[in-house]
Amino acid sequence: MEVEIGKGKSGRRAWGFDDISIVPTRRTRDPEDVDLTWELDAFTFALPMMAAAMDSAVTPITAIEIGRLGGLATLNLEGLWTRYEDPTPIYDEIASLDSQKATRRMQEMYAAPVIPDLITQRVAEIKAADVIACGSFTPQTVSRYIDHAKAGGLDILVVQGTVVSAEHVSSREEPLDLNTFIRDVEMPVIIGGTASYPGALHLMRTGAVGILVGVGPGAACTTRGVLGIGVPQATAIADAAAARSAYLEETGRYVHIIADGGMRTGGDVSKAIALGADAVMIGSPIASASESPSHGYHWGMATFHPTLPRGSRVHTGTLGTIEEILVGPAYENDGRMNLFGGLRGSMATTGYATVKEFQKAEVMVAPALQTEGKQLQRSQGVGMG
Amino acid sequence: MEVEIGKGKSGRRAWGFDDISIVPTRRTRDPEDVDLTWELDAFTFALPMMAAAMDSAVTPITAIEIGRLGGLATLNLEGLWTRYEDPTPIYDEIASLDSQKATRRMQEMYAAPVIPDLITQRVAEIKAADVIACGSFTPQTVSRYIDHAKAGGLDILVVQGTVVSAEHVSSREEPLDLNTFIRDVEMPVIIGGTASYPGALHLMRTGAVGILVGVGPGAACTTRGVLGIGVPQATAIADAAAARSAYLEETGRYVHIIADGGMRTGGDVSKAIALGADAVMIGSPIASASESPSHGYHWGMATFHPTLPRGSRVHTGTLGTIEEILVGPAYENDGRMNLFGGLRGSMATTGYATVKEFQKAEVMVAPALQTEGKQLQRSQGVGMG
Amino acid sequence: MEVEIGKGKSGRRAWGFDDISIVPTRRTRDPEDVDLTWELDAFTFALPMMAAAMDSAVTPITAIEIGRLGGLATLNLEGLWTRYEDPTPIYDEIASLDSQKATRRMQEMYAAPVIPDLITQRVAEIKAADVIACGSFTPQTVSRYIDHAKAGGLDILVVQGTVVSAEHVSSREEPLDLNTFIRDVEMPVIIGGTASYPGALHLMRTGAVGILVGVGPGAACTTRGVLGIGVPQATAIADAAAARSAYLEETGRYVHIIADGGMRTGGDVSKAIALGADAVMIGSPIASASESPSHGYHWGMATFHPTLPRGSRVHTGTLGTIEEILVGPAYENDGRMNLFGGLRGSMATTGYATVKEFQKAEVMVAPALQTEGKQLQRSQGVGMG
Amino acid sequence: MEVEIGKGKSGRRAWGFDDISIVPTRRTRDPEDVDLTWELDAFTFALPMMAAAMDSAVTPITAIEIGRLGGLATLNLEGLWTRYEDPTPIYDEIASLDSQKATRRMQEMYAAPVIPDLITQRVAEIKAADVIACGSFTPQTVSRYIDHAKAGGLDILVVQGTVVSAEHVSSREEPLDLNTFIRDVEMPVIIGGTASYPGALHLMRTGAVGILVGVGPGAACTTRGVLGIGVPQATAIADAAAARSAYLEETGRYVHIIADGGMRTGGDVSKAIALGADAVMIGSPIASASESPSHGYHWGMATFHPTLPRGSRVHTGTLGTIEEILVGPAYENDGRMNLFGGLRGSMATTGYATVKEFQKAEVMVAPALQTEGKQLQRSQGVGMG
Repeated sequence: MEVEIGKGKSGRRAWGFDDISIVPTRRTRDPEDVDLTWELDAFTFALPMMAAAMDSAVTPITAIEIGRLGGLATLNLEGLWTRYEDPTPIYDEIASLDSQKATRRMQEMYAAPVIPDLITQRVAEIKAADVIACGSFTPQTVSRYIDHAKAGGLDILVVQGTVVSAEHVSSREEPLDLNTFIRDVEMPVIIGGTASYPGALHLMRTGAVGILVGVGPGAACTTRGVLGIGVPQATAIADAAAARSAYLEETGRYVHIIADGGMRTGGDVSKAIALGADAVMIGSPIASASESPSHGYHWGMATFHPTLPRGSRVHTGTLGTIEEILVGPAYENDGRMNLFGGLRGSMATTGYATVKEFQKAEVMVAPALQTEGKQLQRSQGVGMG
Repeated sequence: MEVEIGKGKSGRRAWGFDDISIVPTRRTRDPEDVDLTWELDAFTFALPMMAAAMDSAVTPITAIEIGRLGGLATLNLEGLWTRYEDPTPIYDEIASLDSQKATRRMQEMYAAPVIPDLITQRVAEIKAADVIACGSFTPQTVSRYIDHAKAGGLDILVVQGTVVSAEHVSSREEPLDLNTFIRDVEMPVIIGGTASYPGALHLMRTGAVGILVGVGPGAACTTRGVLGIGVPQATAIADAAAARSAYLEETGRYVHIIADGGMRTGGDVSKAIALGADAVMIGSPIASASESPSHGYHWGMATFHPTLPRGSRVHTGTLGTIEEILVGPAYENDGRMNLFGGLRGSMATTGYATVKEFQKAEVMVAPALQTEGKQLQRSQGVGMG
Repeated sequence: MEVEIGKGKSGRRAWGFDDISIVPTRRTRDPEDVDLTWELDAFTFALPMMAAAMDSAVTPITAIEIGRLGGLATLNLEGLWTRYEDPTPIYDEIASLDSQKATRRMQEMYAAPVIPDLITQRVAEIKAADVIACGSFTPQTVSRYIDHAKAGGLDILVVQGTVVSAEHVSSREEPLDLNTFIRDVEMPVIIGGTASYPGALHLMRTGAVGILVGVGPGAACTTRGVLGIGVPQATAIADAAAARSAYLEETGRYVHIIADGGMRTGGDVSKAIALGADAVMIGSPIASASESPSHGYHWGMATFHPTLPRGSRVHTGTLGTIEEILVGPAYENDGRMNLFGGLRGSMATTGYATVKEFQKAEVMVAPALQTEGKQLQRSQGVGMG
Repeated sequence: MEVEIGKGKSGRRAWGFDDISIVPTRRTRDPEDVDLTWELDAFTFALPMMAAAMDSAVTPITAIEIGRLGGLATLNLEGLWTRYEDPTPIYDEIASLDSQKATRRMQEMYAAPVIPDLITQRVAEIKAADVIACGSFTPQTVSRYIDHAKAGGLDILVVQGTVVSAEHVSSREEPLDLNTFIRDVEMPVIIGGTASYPGALHLMRTGAVGILVGVGPGAACTTRGVLGIGVPQATAIADAAAARSAYLEETGRYVHIIADGGMRTGGDVSKAIALGADAVMIGSPIASASESPSHGYHWGMATFHPTLPRGSRVHTGTLGTIEEILVGPAYENDGRMNLFGGLRGSMATTGYATVKEFQKAEVMVAPALQTEGKQLQRSQGVGMG
């Protein structure tokens, strides 16, 4: 669907979650008969979800609770928990900052150095609770710190930035050779973000077990404002799913698509799967859980870049426990609680039995703004790298 | 009109009421010469309308008034009127609840058990006024309660849920066999909701005399937020009308399309017919009548689902009497009063004589948001099942 | 450009003024060399404009001022000026009414009977100032009152309703035979509204010298809400222009297209011409002139229909004199003053010399909502009949 | 992509910055390896940018600072600095004016005569700081004043109006022959605005080294409201880039495309280049610098036209120093600071090394309004001529 922008330029038409809805079929199914299981490499999860490596969402405590409920939480191993022995006062100060001054003060907080031993310690804290431990680094630092993470018992590694490519060019320093690194690291690696068919395909060829799909998908993620870059999430997921099929055809290996960002409700989670994702990665819903030490604030890894910050500290409020947010019960009706009850209900209402089958659901292009005559308020997204 | 969402997924473009307008023809007609009669099975109604089985709209009292004016009201036979001997204090409490606590408290109210004898009694109250009695059950409960409704003299049965399919799959319990049930129940059955061509076609094959078309069409119906599911109502109606033609061709039987949800004004009612509906089902306009005991609040059957509520208690205010709302006169000019005067005026202005002819009216795709540069405020819809 | 709405229905895509912009060419022109003259039948006007037959805009006084400036004002000959000897206190009361009660009270005011002698008197007042006199009736009443208008010296007759068709069907009363009436009335007749190609073509065949194009074009004209009927004005004008060409080809007679409604700025006026109109009919800009007795309020002929009111009394404020509004100078920069200076500037900037040439200007589909990221506030339109 | 507006008119679909986003590739690049250099004629600039000839943005002082940072500032040689010996009190008064009275008072201020000696003096002030001096005139006055500008040492001339064409028609006065003027003026000339393929092509044929592309692109630039004229900037730039290719093919001469107007963030700047621009011209970002004497207000050259003002005095606030705004560091995350850090980051994230390469970046049509469900607030643009 190429559109002529002007005589010198054309572009594909792209679509976001709010543009999409899922279409009922001729069949319905008992919600009890819906299977949400997600199998990634040798691991099986009750819920097809990851929690994002954002300090406002994932801490050793919330990681354990998410693991207990059947999800997979990613701890940012270059965030507050590895820069501060006790980050609690930092969380308290962040929640108390004036909006005017928050960005500048948080630029300072994140300038504190990473303490390698804390990497080992944080991973070990999660492992001690008998929960699968997952942590993230940027491509720039992962070689330096990976052994510290291994020492704590890390099970799954995430290598992440706003955009991570299989072909990074630099005249200053030798970039990480992803293929070699992943082959040698001795644990499953999930890598991202990416948001294009060729980008996804090349990341699959690095040997990763999963890729994170999403660049600037959130409503207020400012990557689009600051850099002009972004792919609406519905298109990004569908493109990545097509790359998954092409790569499977090519190699026989199935690489998981994890939709990363822009999901706030059970409806959004359902759409991500219906568009082709294997699982979703969510941040702000977890930041709004009562177990988060962020006091109802949310921010991401790119929020406090020293010279070009993207994303901001946003107030999400406190909605309920992690359990209520992930699997209910909900006491509100806006879709922000019981996200995976929503997914289960969506699959039941359209008659699908498994996540893999639900990827084939029929969807429509039905812009919410157009059909509902109102603005949807979405949580402010926060960039990653 | 298939649109590529991404390389792995395409979908049809869908449209809602606000995207559509009716086009004048070369002919006009005297409003007095417009015939709004609706014939359903052996029944004839002066107005092509049903009132929705929502406690905020249909009570034994309002059902009688709507019947007197020529419409058909559906009493929810699993709602407040069959759970409480005297629901008046419940209505009063609902109207007085804090917004924060309304959902949770109403989850409790609707947890009270259905009292089968009240089913018989409520139907009998309507029949005693010499009005056609129509009541609704969900597919899960209709077998259990139908004899109580028959004992009261029920004339028309509605079997209803958010999505009802002709093919419900469950490993826990034997689902209702709709074909057998409808063949044996000895009264006309209207069934829904549905919102797709195959869904509509399969419901027609159950033997129903009418189907309810609409899944998440309302502006603020939260089914789309909670489940991601929804079909904009203009597309849903047009698809169902095509299924009606195909089924008529196949069997010689004409099944009525009742557009359910998302209509707030005479313009919306007119568009529903012009898009192919035989009649409309409305809820919030009746909830805003002075005869409703809801004190200007409105809610639906899915609003208080115990673990995954959808839709909410919304304030519609009190607009006028049921008579003023349905057939005028109007003292306001926003289309929310004299709904069927609006339909009559629309048919007169475009020169059509009967509802059946008006289904062939020319319409345009003319998004209100785009052409009017403003947001339309629509009543918050409330889901059904 | 047929769009599939659903399997049973398709419709054309339609566009409004806010969706359109005029494209610069390779040429520019001195504004002094732009000719705005409009020739209609035997009359020549310095400005290609009519003032709408709305009591808030056209009075005998403002009609004379508009005529002096080179435009053509239409007095509503069934409005306040022919129902009341002195309507001044009525204007004062209208401006003082509570919003809640305005519609109901104005329904009463407009229920006062038309006094035929006042028709003659009002037309004569305009003629006495040596200005071309133009007045309007509805098709239902024009036969009854036309001789009274002739007695006052009426020059140009407007026959007007929300939609006027050449084929009105009524079993109650013999409809006006437009062809015979226009042939016999002995003055040029302008007729409308219409908003479709066949509607326009059939009105041209009645012998009218001009047709009014526009049904529900205004942003807040409630015809679309109340009746569901409306054609966005850009499409309506372009369709009518095509009908003009076809009719010219068929008969050699050129019938003028007067774009009626939805224009608030010089940009809107320019677009109407660029889309094919010969002249524009404006209401609310004149209601906001200091010479209007409406105290900055505006309403139309359908606003106070006894059972189905459409349009409302809206507050436009007072902007400047009629002269400043029509030909400047402007002291504001939002395009609402110096409307025809705006048209002149638009023609100069794109290099066109005459109104007839400017009808061929290149336009783009460039939705303001999409490209500007903001909502445009437009005056609330008011329906005619 | 021709769209039928109505039976009598079609138009191309056009797109603005908010409709566009840049797509990641399979490659990323170290920001340090990104080259932003812009070569224009014999001049080399560190940043591909011009500052617009608006009194609120460019003064002799800010021109020098912009030059020092590697950009090119255009002083309006018919603005406050050549009408007043000391314009400081004028700036102060403008900032203090009531919104209601600002336009009228500023019409008076700009009615003061241009003092030719001040032209020479202002240019000389810039030259004295060893910075490349660039100034602008309108086509109507450039012949009269050019020698005064030359006397001060002007390096680059801008000839500018809302729309400047190579073919201006006037019966009153002989228009400027651009080809002859540019051949004889003995310095590089940049000319505009234009916003169409043929308009751009004909301006290139005048011999200009660069053309300004943009007519009414800003969100609140009122040219579209006042005149109905405007081309959304993404389409305008892409069309002009196509004209550049055609002209290069035809003559072997490369004429620069400078995107003029509508850019507020680093993302907008990035999109302008990705759509084909060689450089950008910005106004309001500079007006919001602490070095501007405008006290956080912004206005343009057409704002105070004596009879048809377009654009308005808008409040932009004070954001930071010119250095922070152009090259950072940023302490806010909305993209309004560190504009060229944003461009650098955008090129790095998508793997491009030079501005010329980045013109080939893949873009998508992804309307922000549609995908973000929110309104973007953009600075109010101000027209030029």
